[in-house]
This record gives sequence, C-alpha cells and structure tokens, in this order.
Amino acid sequence: MTDTINDQNQAPDHALTPDQAAEQARREEELIQRVLDSFESTPDARLKELMQSLVKHLHAFIREVRLTEAEWDQAIEFLTAVGHITDDRRQEFVLLSDVLGASMQTIAVNNLAAGNATEATVFGPFFVDDAPEIQHGEDISGGAHGQPSWIEGTVTNIHGEPIDGARIEVWEADEDGFYDVQYDDQRVAGRAFLRSGADGEYAFWGLTPTPYPIPHDGPVGKMLEATNRSPVRAAHLHFMVTAPGYRTLVTHIFVEGDPQLQIGDSVFGVKDSLIKRFEEQPTGTPTPNGRDLDNQTWTKARFDIVLAEDTHPQA
Amino acid sequence: MTDTINDQNQAPDHALTPDQAAEQARREEELIQRVLDSFESTPDARLKELMQSLVKHLHAFIREVRLTEAEWDQAIEFLTAVGHITDDRRQEFVLLSDVLGASMQTIAVNNLAAGNATEATVFGPFFVDDAPEIQHGEDISGGAHGQPSWIEGTVTNIHGEPIDGARIEVWEADEDGFYDVQYDDQRVAGRAFLRSGADGEYAFWGLTPTPYPIPHDGPVGKMLEATNRSPVRAAHLHFMVTAPGYRTLVTHIFVEGDPQLQIGDSVFGVKDSLIKRFEEQPTGTPTPNGRDLDNQTWTKARFDIVLAEDTHPQA
Repeated sequence: MTDTINDQNQAPDHALTPDQAAEQARREEELIQRVLDSFESTPDARLKELMQSLVKHLHAFIREVRLTEAEWDQAIEFLTAVGHITDDRRQEFVLLSDVLGASMQTIAVNNLAAGNATEATVFGPFFVDDAPEIQHGEDISGGAHGQPSWIEGTVTNIHGEPIDGARIEVWEADEDGFYDVQYDDQRVAGRAFLRSGADGEYAFWGLTPTPYPIPHDGPVGKMLEATNRSPVRAAHLHFMVTAPGYRTLVTHIFVEGDPQLQIGDSVFGVKDSLIKRFEEQPTGTPTPNGRDLDNQTWTKARFDIVLAEDTHPQA
Repeated sequence: MTDTINDQNQAPDHALTPDQAAEQARREEELIQRVLDSFESTPDARLKELMQSLVKHLHAFIREVRLTEAEWDQAIEFLTAVGHITDDRRQEFVLLSDVLGASMQTIAVNNLAAGNATEATVFGPFFVDDAPEIQHGEDISGGAHGQPSWIEGTVTNIHGEPIDGARIEVWEADEDGFYDVQYDDQRVAGRAFLRSGADGEYAFWGLTPTPYPIPHDGPVGKMLEATNRSPVRAAHLHFMVTAPGYRTLVTHIFVEGDPQLQIGDSVFGVKDSLIKRFEEQPTGTPTPNGRDLDNQTWTKARFDIVLAEDTHPQA
C-alpha cells in the first residue's frame, strides 16, 4: 500500500555492516515466517500447501531482486491493466501465464514423461467442443484459406500396439492467422474430429500451418515489446487425442524450417519431438486419395501419436 | 532450480522410474532455460533481472506444488476477479499484495536496518497530502469520535541527537474504523502534521487506535475466509516523518494488549518495536496541557522516533 517513498536501488554505498546484514536478514525471514504461520490453520491441506509455497517463492523473488517501491507500484499498475483488459473474449491473465512459460510448465508437470509417449503442449484458447466429424482422408478446412496439407499417422500405445477408434480433434488457424471463432460470422472452419482405424491409422486434409501473433495490443504485448520479444507463435496445428484407458493428449505439431522456431515461440509450446517435416509437393503431384487440388501446391506430413496409459482413471 | 521429482505430491501409482524422473526433470528445466533465454536481449538491464528472477521463482513454485491444471484454472479465475473489482476507489491487487506480506517485504528490503532507527511499516491507502498543520499539544481528531489519547516523544538521529523541525504526519481511523476519506462529506478528521521542537520533542492529542477490517467483500476476502484468516488490522496510528538528510520513515504504532496482535495483523505490519503502551487514565486525571476532557477517560503513549541517515539524497 505504499507510494514511492524510498525508490532507490541498493547502491554500493548502502552496504551493510555484518551486524546490520544479519539483523536485516532476520527481519526479512521473520516476516516470511509470520506470513507462513498465518496460513497454518487453513482447513484444506492442499490449499494450505499452495498458499505457503506461493508465499515462500514470492518473498524469495522480492528479496532476491531487492524490489524497489517504484517497481512494486509498476507491478500493481501492470496487473491492474491486465485485469481491466480481460473480459469474456479476451483473457490477458492467460496470455501472461503463457508468455512467462507458466502455462507450459503446468502442462509439463501434469504430463509426466512416459516412455515414448507423445509430448504435450499448450491447449490454447481456440478449441471448441462441437467440431464436425470427418471420415478418414476428408478435409477439415471448411473453406478456410491456405495451402492444403495431407496429415497422416498412427495412434498407438507405448508398446507400439495400435489404438482403434481414438478420437482425434484437430484445429488450426487459416493462412491469415485467424481461427474460425475469431470471425464474427459463425463459420466452422479449420476444425474437425475423426477416429483412428482398427490399425490405428488416421489421415486428413488440413492446411499447412502459418505463424501468427498472440493478441499484443494490451499490457502483455507492451511487456513483450519492452523485453524485445516476439509475440508470434511458431506455425502449428492443434491435436487433442482421447481413447479410453489412455491419458488425454493435448499437443501441436510444428513445421520444420519455420523461421519462428529460431526466433522462439511466444508461449514456449515447441518441443523438438513435435517439429515435423511438411514436404512440399509440386503442382500436379497426385494426391494420396485422388483429391483434385486444381493445380495448387500441397504439403504432406506424418505424425505418429503415442498415448500414455492413464494411471489416474476418472472415478 | 532443480526440484526432486519423486518427492512431490504425485499419487503413489504415478511414481516414475529413475530414468523417467530424469527425463521429466530435464524437460522441466529445459523449459525454464528457454523462458529465461527469451528475456536475454531485454534492453534495460534491471527489467531483464526482474523478469528472469520472476520466471525462476514462478516456475519453482509450479514445480514444487505440482500445480494441477484445475488449480491453474482457479488461479486465472481468481486473478480475473481481483482485476474486475479493482477501480479508482478499490485496489484489490494492493490488498492481495498486503495479505501475502509482499507489501511489507517490499518495505523491509527498502528500509535497511540502521542501528536503532525506528522500523518502517506499510503506508496504507488512507494518507492524504494536504492535512492541516497543528502546534505542539494540539488535537488532530477534528471531531472524529474516539477516546482521546496524548502521544508524545522525541525525534532524534541514531546518535541520539535531537532533530529540530522534523515534519511529523499522523493519521488514523475513528472509533468506528473509518478514515475521514472513507466518508462522503469531505470532512478532514484524524489527520494533521506538526513539527518537532528544537529539543526534538513533539506531542499531540489523537484517538486511542481501534482495530478495523480491510475490505473483505471481494476475492481477497474470500481467500482469507478459505484460509481461516482474520481480515482485521491490529489497532494502529500512522506516522510519516521527514527531515532533510534523513531517510523518510513511514510507520505505525500499535497498542499493547490489543487482542488482534495475537490473532495476527492481516497485512503483517506489526513489529515488536512498534507496540506501545497506551496507558489508561481514569476520569478526572489532569491532562498534560490542561485540556478539559469533560470527564472522558483518556490514554497516554510515548513514541520516540529515531531516523536513519539518508544514504541516497535526492539529486
């Protein structure tokens, strides 16, 4: 609750004697203990654990950087701006979590390494529940503009056994970088679900993914600018794969050679294992299922999906 | 930055083999490194330091508690609610910082221990700039209701030398727990400034402080309730003391025997050195300066203020 009272950085002339330093550390640590103690009678054990750990790490941050009161003021202003731009359509706190890698770290700790199971990545805000079903080899684009891309692969478990009937949800932006739900006209495009066959195989037509920026006209965008970071997401195609007895896989595939992979994905979703070659096919190359592309070029990519067993089945 | 994977809150059936644990740790640490690297080209060195330290501690928190995706959702919802209740009159992010002890820790790191200099505490939201001046022994209450209290003391430096003409701002809530600015009628009450005399002495009439709750009808109040914490601040009287060449002191004094001191001050402002005895004076006890209290009881407290030298004079 302070204004800027003493907004100095700790300059060398502020060096403390050993006694003063010890007293200063004692005061800072006593405060932390007092805050930790205040959560001691939290009825819910997990909430208590979360709050006490949060306090510990938050205070460690303030002490490590010797946060000035002016910087504290700026932090409050920043969070206030994040809160005020957030509404039903814009979730700036999620963006903030994303660009700090916190969303991706949460994904990581909830999708533990399990043999060669496909790695998970961020869910993103553009999934919708009622995408249309397509059959093997059909097109998800629904009129969305972009270069056609044939995606194929298998769904297996970590022992290499095919999974029959896995539900494969796929969604992606058009070549202008927009998902269907970002348009005002209720279109359904660039999204669908299909099921793997008895041999675990699946294939569909989508669009070759292209990079696009996260919304960057708000406080999170200002933070990216001040830190010289790109708001652009590496080109990607979303997958969510579910099958009874297996851990739900939420992931993307990325495009080998996309320059944004070098610059850095703004939300840290990239895993090396998820970068796939989208092979350019010259005009006139016959398509795998005889689709007539009217002389467009197209690409072809393979994504073999490996599901981990669900060790925590829902009750 | 390394947490131990196996000593976290994973259910027993989720135990990882040593190889899996190593791979899992590698993934989590690689992600942190990637996020740290993304801030590497921040032009401002201090901003870079702040962001990289924040990332390190934020990720350490997520890894330590093994934050679930449902908990991440709740955190986003909570911050959204904090953002939405915040406006020009209500600053819920400041309250959040306060009840987590982050405000008080920021005060602590910016007011380094310096001999017997008086300890600082939180500034609070109720200071206003243009309080009236009073003379030695006059009354700050301006009609605010409460038990009269005579506060006296000296302002000295850490060598015990009196400071002449120090500006002493004092402000406090009335016996109903409200500051003047919380009323709609533009009253000026319970606030004033005065100056120390040539011998460093000061004295004024105020009100014996009483406890009051911070605003607790919002998300921060819900958090306090869920964690079984009191929203009440220990009874206190605010001081801000300034003198050329000395570090500005923002502090409170607290009331010995206030039961809230045991329960806990909701914003962690209490320091043992700031708890003062407010001696109850029976009806009819003569007042120090002959003020006629019309048979009210009153209290008397002493607060000797010691200012640290300003090692960072303003340019």
